[in-house]
Amino acid sequence: MKECISSTSNPRVKELVKLRESSRYRRKRKLFVIEGFEDFECILKYRKVILEMFYCPSLIEKSGNIKKLEYLKDFKINLIELSEEAFLKASYRKNSDGFLSLANQWSLELEDIDLVKDEICVVLDGIEKPGNLGAIIRSMEAMGIKSLILSDAYVDLFNPNVVRSSRGLLSGVQVGRGTKEEVHSLLQKYGFSIFGVCGSGKNILWDHAFSPKTALIFGSEKNGLDNFWKKNINTFLKIPMYGRADSLNLHASVACTLFEFNRQTR
Amino acid sequence: MKECISSTSNPRVKELVKLRESSRYRRKRKLFVIEGFEDFECILKYRKVILEMFYCPSLIEKSGNIKKLEYLKDFKINLIELSEEAFLKASYRKNSDGFLSLANQWSLELEDIDLVKDEICVVLDGIEKPGNLGAIIRSMEAMGIKSLILSDAYVDLFNPNVVRSSRGLLSGVQVGRGTKEEVHSLLQKYGFSIFGVCGSGKNILWDHAFSPKTALIFGSEKNGLDNFWKKNINTFLKIPMYGRADSLNLHASVACTLFEFNRQTR
Repeated sequence: MKECISSTSNPRVKELVKLRESSRYRRKRKLFVIEGFEDFECILKYRKVILEMFYCPSLIEKSGNIKKLEYLKDFKINLIELSEEAFLKASYRKNSDGFLSLANQWSLELEDIDLVKDEICVVLDGIEKPGNLGAIIRSMEAMGIKSLILSDAYVDLFNPNVVRSSRGLLSGVQVGRGTKEEVHSLLQKYGFSIFGVCGSGKNILWDHAFSPKTALIFGSEKNGLDNFWKKNINTFLKIPMYGRADSLNLHASVACTLFEFNRQTR
Repeated sequence: MKECISSTSNPRVKELVKLRESSRYRRKRKLFVIEGFEDFECILKYRKVILEMFYCPSLIEKSGNIKKLEYLKDFKINLIELSEEAFLKASYRKNSDGFLSLANQWSLELEDIDLVKDEICVVLDGIEKPGNLGAIIRSMEAMGIKSLILSDAYVDLFNPNVVRSSRGLLSGVQVGRGTKEEVHSLLQKYGFSIFGVCGSGKNILWDHAFSPKTALIFGSEKNGLDNFWKKNINTFLKIPMYGRADSLNLHASVACTLFEFNRQTR
């Protein structure tokens, strides 16, 4: 028999809300939620992590996606129907398309990261904003840069805003997280040369000839590169600024740097 | 006597709320609001448009900015004290620093735009998201690109989210707005060569040699370049993509393109 949930106080609905709101609960359950069909599809292409799909026929109809529901039946995923009321309680997006899926988290342990084949690796230190992290992941994937390391991150990769702003591409980039010291050891183990990118860098980015095995360290939105990284970096690169603003925002800095890497090496 | 407002139903407080919420009301009154001391200072450096400053002593104290209040007294700006309750009603940011200023809008008419000295000009067509527009303006100013034209924009430059995400730098870039046809005529009048930047472009951005008087047209977040611009553009540039994502987001595209322009021409 097909499962159907109509009450907003159903434990499954409550669980979806909790998974949306609490990173601690997400970690405990090793689960996360994905809103929208496109992000679901994108994550599924890279990783077989989807456990269940919650869907709301009336919202799906409103968004003109009935065909997607049919198509979904070909996947071997447990489908659970929600009433509009129950769905909207669980949902975190405005104008939801009526699809919400539950997925297993995957390991972000540094020991599971393989950098043998990577010529470039991005490190974000102390990142705070989910929207930034998601946007950076989307740009990295689009630019074909496959490895991202988070040192002392404040934000959870499986935060719904990261999932959303990455357009589901968080599954298309290898992500690891650890302390600054652990990340530094990892980069050394794989023989990376470590470069900082910051407004006070002495070397202009486009004058720097990228060599294989380059790790690029970006500081936090608020404080830039901290003392640990400053001590462990020999060369600091900068994107030249010509206005009153003394820096680009973090996402723009990462995008421009990877653009220049691609220009030189592709 | 110093003016002090304690009630949340005071007409001045209600006006601030209306200016925050309604672009129509902003246009009618030709006013806009700027939240936070830093954005106020930044706008003031470029343009003498500030009319009044509303401030809340208790919030200023909490944010450790008492000295800024003293410093403010040197400006010849009308200061109006608000109670915390009244200020929070008018405020649109979380963790406000206790400063909110009221400013005159300036002209965005295309006839007031001067492109004589500009070697490059950015055109955003049909832009929809205030956060994107603000972020793009911030990146443009940082990169020293001084002219931005909006064709058929859906977003108001004086939207509080544009002000905020530009870090007040909307005053540091010359912005004009008009219909697609008007913008096209303007570019022709000033002798610009018109290039589109889009995922389906045939020319790789870094292989393109930028010439003086270049106008770069970027399509909307949702639909990319529309038919009008496609008809009126001879050369389409693209940022090479190597992942499953077929495009960068609008802000990242603009930032990378301007980065490349600067690399070639500075």
